[in-house]
Amino acid sequence: MNIQGQAFRTIWLKPGDLTRIQIIDQRHLPHQLFIEDLETVDQMATAIKDMHLRGAGLIGAAAGFGIYLATLEAPKNDFFETFIFQAAEKLKSTRPTAVNLAWAVDRQLNAIQQGQSIEEKIDIALFMATQIADEDAEHCRHIGEHGLPLIEAISRKKNGAPVNILTHCNAGWLAFVDYGSATSSIYAAHDKGIAVHVWVDETRPRNQGASLTAWELGQHGVPHTIIADNTGGHLMQHGMVDMVIVGSDRTTYTGDVANKIGTYLKALAAHDNNIPFYAALPSSSIDWQMEDGLKEIVIEERHGDEVKYMEGLCESEIKKVLLTPLNSNAANYAFDVTPARLITGIITERGICKANRESILDLFPEKKQHG
Amino acid sequence: MNIQGQAFRTIWLKPGDLTRIQIIDQRHLPHQLFIEDLETVDQMATAIKDMHLRGAGLIGAAAGFGIYLATLEAPKNDFFETFIFQAAEKLKSTRPTAVNLAWAVDRQLNAIQQGQSIEEKIDIALFMATQIADEDAEHCRHIGEHGLPLIEAISRKKNGAPVNILTHCNAGWLAFVDYGSATSSIYAAHDKGIAVHVWVDETRPRNQGASLTAWELGQHGVPHTIIADNTGGHLMQHGMVDMVIVGSDRTTYTGDVANKIGTYLKALAAHDNNIPFYAALPSSSIDWQMEDGLKEIVIEERHGDEVKYMEGLCESEIKKVLLTPLNSNAANYAFDVTPARLITGIITERGICKANRESILDLFPEKKQHG
Repeated sequence: MNIQGQAFRTIWLKPGDLTRIQIIDQRHLPHQLFIEDLETVDQMATAIKDMHLRGAGLIGAAAGFGIYLATLEAPKNDFFETFIFQAAEKLKSTRPTAVNLAWAVDRQLNAIQQGQSIEEKIDIALFMATQIADEDAEHCRHIGEHGLPLIEAISRKKNGAPVNILTHCNAGWLAFVDYGSATSSIYAAHDKGIAVHVWVDETRPRNQGASLTAWELGQHGVPHTIIADNTGGHLMQHGMVDMVIVGSDRTTYTGDVANKIGTYLKALAAHDNNIPFYAALPSSSIDWQMEDGLKEIVIEERHGDEVKYMEGLCESEIKKVLLTPLNSNAANYAFDVTPARLITGIITERGICKANRESILDLFPEKKQHG
Repeated sequence: MNIQGQAFRTIWLKPGDLTRIQIIDQRHLPHQLFIEDLETVDQMATAIKDMHLRGAGLIGAAAGFGIYLATLEAPKNDFFETFIFQAAEKLKSTRPTAVNLAWAVDRQLNAIQQGQSIEEKIDIALFMATQIADEDAEHCRHIGEHGLPLIEAISRKKNGAPVNILTHCNAGWLAFVDYGSATSSIYAAHDKGIAVHVWVDETRPRNQGASLTAWELGQHGVPHTIIADNTGGHLMQHGMVDMVIVGSDRTTYTGDVANKIGTYLKALAAHDNNIPFYAALPSSSIDWQMEDGLKEIVIEERHGDEVKYMEGLCESEIKKVLLTPLNSNAANYAFDVTPARLITGIITERGICKANRESILDLFPEKKQHG
């Protein structure tokens, strides 16, 4: 999507230089746009581990490019394969719970094995890294196309008045290679000239909404308003939200949606006020083994200091301030699970389905052996 | 309640000095306990206006003491009354929407008129200011006594394991003269030796939970854990909350509860998980004219910068950091309304009632002409 009028992705091969990958170092957002050059697999591993980049789709693409960098670095002799396998393990260990990471690395390893010579393996790694990234962007673009008619329908009902869409956390293009999941339909509608306005939950404690979603919407020119996470219910009670679209970190094939902590509260409010609530996600986020999201999905607990301290810009520097008594405990659960019964529909790259086993498997019939 | 083992109120006559009022300047909490001396009505007006103190009950008590300070300052001649009336107007204008403020000022004016001499009027003003403060503390103490059996019953059911209570914002003793409304039963249970643990919603955007509730619970020795406002739903889904107690800024006589923004979301989650949800409030917060909270209660909109910037302690100084893109809009609704249907009961100084017209009026039969 656009940054100051110029089209960007979150990760790309450096123009005119086949040996470097460039990424947006998201740690500096929203205050500074910082492009980082990466030329070793170690640098890529650090970028993933220390969250220069984050988001399921983007982590997968970064791992793919990481393996490509490893093929460039690897000794061009019998130790080539060993180096690649060590690089693969290194990349996989950066964020062990990220499903797309291992998937992208394994896809690269399988592809490289097909190469006859080291040169050919390097070519394959570049091709596959690019393909993983392109596929991620394409899946997100398709999610946008499938969600667009939902927004158009509301826009028609409102005679073109802005469609107010609430979103939580960052399921935007910054979490993928391009377009995003929850944001993709919003960008599609905006680019088609449909008036939209986004309520951006700030998303405590890590503020991904306030810092990332607000930034990317603003850069692309989409009208938006940041709100405290407490606010959505009040807005829905007063007819100020037309629909909710969120992303998902893991969705069971029965339609339970794990997403950033607080999503469940917004789903309850949408349900109480008869407002459509959609989860938008590439099918790679669907867990075909899990049946009961509340019982089976393990919720990551992070350090309480993310609640107690807050980072932001102060006199041109990033500073961290303490909000609480120094000695108070804080708990920090990263995700919650929204039960399928509260979800109007799931928007995937193949189309929209209901949040239940039958409807999901109708869209992905090749998975039926799991259902 | 206690601060480092010593009993405190939020406002008091300076020991050994009848000409000064002392308050906790809450702007420095939780990082520093700062006691401020006030000796003029202008200083008291500033303390109320600039929120050195806040909270319905405390504002009323402060206004009462403000009038007392005015009687000390006023010229002891024919202009005495004029000075007092001007002081009254000044105090009332500091926070025009605070119901208790005008009520306390008018109560003082009426009382002072009964005095025959200026000396007597001063004595009356001191007596009445003390009485307003004592009454506030007594009402809160009674709320605690009435709520205590609810906690005791859960404690018995859990065989003495800690009762987990979630609260939102600060309806603690810092918002009143002592005890608080939502916290009063919690302090009563803790002081009786019942094991309790409080989940403290940080309460964005002004963080009253993270800064004030956590501080006062910690100082009194009550176990507590601060959580992002997004977290409560997840905790309730997993049986980690036994009950919710919140305060109220205004409650209709039909049982709709206006409270800090985000309260409605917690009420929805409590309802969805079959967890009792109580509002604790002195009857002075009941609006005997209002029937439909959602339609009639006007919700204050505050400046968006409270969402965009956050204050905290950084290298021993209070600093303000920017969380969002500089140019993004932010909206800041201060309260929401929880419909009566989501509320298990209302705990008042007279006892507990259901959140409906009949039950509330049974507890306050003298108000029946309004129902």
